[in-house]
Amino acid sequence: MTTTVERQPRNGVDTPTLFATLDAVKGSPDLAKFQFRATNRWISGTHNRSTIRGFFGAGQEDTSRTADFTYDADHPAVLVGTGNGPTPVEFVLHALAACLTSGLANIAAARGVTLHSVESTVEGDIDLLGILGLSDQVRNGYQGIRVSFKISGDAPDDVLRGLIEQSRRRSAVYDVVTNGVPVEITVDTH
Amino acid sequence: MTTTVERQPRNGVDTPTLFATLDAVKGSPDLAKFQFRATNRWISGTHNRSTIRGFFGAGQEDTSRTADFTYDADHPAVLVGTGNGPTPVEFVLHALAACLTSGLANIAAARGVTLHSVESTVEGDIDLLGILGLSDQVRNGYQGIRVSFKISGDAPDDVLRGLIEQSRRRSAVYDVVTNGVPVEITVDTH
Repeated sequence: MTTTVERQPRNGVDTPTLFATLDAVKGSPDLAKFQFRATNRWISGTHNRSTIRGFFGAGQEDTSRTADFTYDADHPAVLVGTGNGPTPVEFVLHALAACLTSGLANIAAARGVTLHSVESTVEGDIDLLGILGLSDQVRNGYQGIRVSFKISGDAPDDVLRGLIEQSRRRSAVYDVVTNGVPVEITVDTH
Repeated sequence: MTTTVERQPRNGVDTPTLFATLDAVKGSPDLAKFQFRATNRWISGTHNRSTIRGFFGAGQEDTSRTADFTYDADHPAVLVGTGNGPTPVEFVLHALAACLTSGLANIAAARGVTLHSVESTVEGDIDLLGILGLSDQVRNGYQGIRVSFKISGDAPDDVLRGLIEQSRRRSAVYDVVTNGVPVEITVDTH
């Protein structure tokens, strides 16, 4: 498969800067080491709030974000919560759709494809017998996730499908969600 | 290890309803089958927006949510985005902290522990040589995630630590993030 490398801004992507960034990282691979962070504070019951702001990357602490992003999570009433936010598992679906879509726009720009619209729906099936401790045969998390894309752009069907396939191949969240990541938990009591 | 089962509301958790829900699901296990959803729409470049509202569970479509939850995601300028939201991978950290904390409050209530405060910080290390396609030796997603809890409550150190350990054992997002989930992607072009 051959792809055409375009250097024009497209789809709201600053394609020249995208390629310049790739060249910079090729020359200094340590620029690619990032650390992302979130802090969370319990409010009441299943309601809690995360703050996202600082991260390290490209050799330094970020200073571009001038305000916190804050997100509430909660359980709905049917799960004995107060519904002050989506459930944590729903944020995973958002993260997956967002990552695939962000990558797609970059890849389309790099391949010279103008996108008209991209929409996706993500569904995750979960059997709460696991987290409720009512069955050892049922996992805690989603049993399966389906992502359905609708994409429109100035390229043939196979090229548009190829954009999504390449985005899947290079998606950080898709990798995390399909392959898993080691998680270490430490506790300080006081 | 023995735990005391309390039936008093505590920590903002309606403990009697929590146990009644467990009993109801024991009697009708199909009530535990849930489907969560998110829809996402591309805006421009790496900026896109998810909407979270409907879900199926406890045998029916939810009607308790009277408005959409909407969340923007984007890449920061250093990653050639416009910074209109956190990156998708940061939402994964939020989801993980939120899930562990929601479960913790329920477990504390069930064990008769009054919580004073719960805070957590989540850090994820990622080497973008993977998603940038600059190394086949580097994965796309996080290489590791660390969660640091600070917890205060009216119980001894080992009991407080036990709450977090039990929350980890029963966390949907922890399971997804550590063990992975099959993801199916379908595409409709037009």
